[in-house]
Amino acid sequence: MDIKHYMNQVGQQARTASRAMAKADTATKNKALLLIAAAIRRDAPLLRAANELDLAEARKNGLADAMVDRLTLSDKAIATMVEGLEQIVALADPIGEMSNLKFRPSGIQVGQMRVPLGVIGIIYEARPNVTVDAAGLCIKSGNATILRGGSEAIHCNQALAKLVKEGLGGAGLPENGVQVIATTDRAAVGELITMPQYVDVIVPRGGKGLIERLMRDGTVPMIKHLDGICHVYIDDKADIDKALPIAFNAKCHRYGTCNTMETLLVARGIAAQVLPLLAKLYADKQVELRADAEAQVILAGYPYLTSASEEDWGTEYLAPILAVKIVTDIDEAIAHINTYSSQHTDAIVTEDYSRSLRFLREVDSASVMVNASTRFADGFEYGLGAEIGISNDKLHARGPVGLEGLTSLKYVVFGHGEVRE
Amino acid sequence: MDIKHYMNQVGQQARTASRAMAKADTATKNKALLLIAAAIRRDAPLLRAANELDLAEARKNGLADAMVDRLTLSDKAIATMVEGLEQIVALADPIGEMSNLKFRPSGIQVGQMRVPLGVIGIIYEARPNVTVDAAGLCIKSGNATILRGGSEAIHCNQALAKLVKEGLGGAGLPENGVQVIATTDRAAVGELITMPQYVDVIVPRGGKGLIERLMRDGTVPMIKHLDGICHVYIDDKADIDKALPIAFNAKCHRYGTCNTMETLLVARGIAAQVLPLLAKLYADKQVELRADAEAQVILAGYPYLTSASEEDWGTEYLAPILAVKIVTDIDEAIAHINTYSSQHTDAIVTEDYSRSLRFLREVDSASVMVNASTRFADGFEYGLGAEIGISNDKLHARGPVGLEGLTSLKYVVFGHGEVRE
Repeated sequence: MDIKHYMNQVGQQARTASRAMAKADTATKNKALLLIAAAIRRDAPLLRAANELDLAEARKNGLADAMVDRLTLSDKAIATMVEGLEQIVALADPIGEMSNLKFRPSGIQVGQMRVPLGVIGIIYEARPNVTVDAAGLCIKSGNATILRGGSEAIHCNQALAKLVKEGLGGAGLPENGVQVIATTDRAAVGELITMPQYVDVIVPRGGKGLIERLMRDGTVPMIKHLDGICHVYIDDKADIDKALPIAFNAKCHRYGTCNTMETLLVARGIAAQVLPLLAKLYADKQVELRADAEAQVILAGYPYLTSASEEDWGTEYLAPILAVKIVTDIDEAIAHINTYSSQHTDAIVTEDYSRSLRFLREVDSASVMVNASTRFADGFEYGLGAEIGISNDKLHARGPVGLEGLTSLKYVVFGHGEVRE
Repeated sequence: MDIKHYMNQVGQQARTASRAMAKADTATKNKALLLIAAAIRRDAPLLRAANELDLAEARKNGLADAMVDRLTLSDKAIATMVEGLEQIVALADPIGEMSNLKFRPSGIQVGQMRVPLGVIGIIYEARPNVTVDAAGLCIKSGNATILRGGSEAIHCNQALAKLVKEGLGGAGLPENGVQVIATTDRAAVGELITMPQYVDVIVPRGGKGLIERLMRDGTVPMIKHLDGICHVYIDDKADIDKALPIAFNAKCHRYGTCNTMETLLVARGIAAQVLPLLAKLYADKQVELRADAEAQVILAGYPYLTSASEEDWGTEYLAPILAVKIVTDIDEAIAHINTYSSQHTDAIVTEDYSRSLRFLREVDSASVMVNASTRFADGFEYGLGAEIGISNDKLHARGPVGLEGLTSLKYVVFGHGEVRE
């Protein structure tokens, strides 16, 4: 197989299909989504059989349990995929929406129209559910899509691709509106990220290593995030009844997510009061506390106490480990966050009005919170309905990226024969 | 001079200054802008003297008249710069604006806050007025800026930089909020576009060659446009009294601008009626018409008639030359535009309701117009107040880029102690 030739063809087909996807009306797109959902429900046994081929191969190759787990398409996972599509049907169609149409002194009326980005390439790990979620979001937002899932899921992804194409065709949309790359050859990824003539944006979903490689080699713009080094700052004007559950939830609700707190900052004036209470909560979960010298004094006797080094302030543990630092005040907290944060999500706990507003304004992160757990930084919790990913970039989309992040605004002008003087 | 070291220092200083610029309030930013305006008015004789050094050098080096013209800082140009700053003072401050704050079922209230991008690098030709315009827009939008103007303007730009720093300092803002690169060494540009750790976005303003080079070598995202291959399509349901002035204005109002029409498409059903009338208007301006075979028959006898080749459909003439093509209908017009347009600005002239809506929706360009001249695609005409440039990209900003294009939206969460269940 000539990968360059194949990917060039895939790209051309996507570009052509994107025209029809962009002008499809809401009813047509929803019909396609419901047909795909029905086909998945109908062919669940076939999907599980295809998945079994992938799983057998994975076990033979000694894939880690966690990866086998994510690769597995259980009955529950299939039901969740179908529900996800139905939820996307229920979302408002962002495409074609016009806003801010204002008359100008020249007589023209100018506003903006929301339009699809065009062709979106999505590169993800061996998680078959992402194939359907991503296809659904891209269909609803009027984009053509090229999907490249982890090679361990190739059989299952190809079976899903067939059903997606069936749904698109059944609704009168081009089957190439969604293409799942049919080869496990890694060279296909290299082509996908260097075809700006065919692909408008790449959404990479995966580990930091993958994304760094794509950033280094790619020429197509990306919507991406690398790290989630999130902070909670407990101010000396914090309500302790809020601080304790927030600091506990932000660390212990789930360890492996990008919006989990990795560093706790505590104001000196409240540290002796709040840290021992927090330690009791963390001790139950055997959370290792990597504390600076001052916090170590307060936490003396905590069973999982270690010493923080400079490196800890910039580390995403994704584990029951928490860096702890005492700071003088909100100034030092903001300075620390703006230095070490990955600009993902940071929170303050305070009852002080002015400090809450300063934190919201001055912390330069995609999500900034007052008196809430960082775990809320999520498309569903924010009311976006579903998310294709979370962006740490400043250009285009920042934070959880839903349907709107897959669109752009163009200017529209309603004239009456006006010319420029 | 060690360029790498120097640029690294400039970048670090910009990143540090960006924090103070981002949190500056509206009154402080406006004070800085007015102090700069006053300093420019006060030191006009010094600025003209610095400009004279540049002009003497330019004449010695045999610079083309058009370039000398743009390099010249006349009394009128100085007055226009001052007025431009005063207009930026009058614009609403976009920073800190919060929108769409909605309560979620969890109890948190989620919305978005408009924030600066951070550090903006601007690379432009030897036009001293751009130094002040760009600095003004970046100050008002709370960004730190690194300016790199054409080397022919180095004396004048350094004199202006001094006044900008005086204004920033006078308002209590960091003088490094705006830095004008103090060397004409081209290596400085190479550094500027490869410092993503210090620079959040590059806005290149200049010819296609410059921008292509920056795109090839740069690792910092850019807000840019390469071409302006703009179309007017005269539909067979067009009102001829609108079609004639629009097609004439779009071509002849100014030849060298990116929103000038380069290709005219005419529906077959109206071509024999409209083209001879248009030819009379174009003949006065000696506009060369590069027509396809069918249009040539209608235009037979036109004094500046030549034959269009495939290459003409993709050429930006920036001159009194117009490609002319007969099309069957709106379908062929849209297909032609979506193939050959640079996605800058395209217009339809029609009285047909459904076709006007189809054109607006289906033409994939930054500005799409009905019954108006393409020359309106401009920040001032659109009511943005001023523009830093025009973007042909789909990500982030599309079309004329004003203050808002120099900002981003972050999520803000107002909580009351909520944690994730």
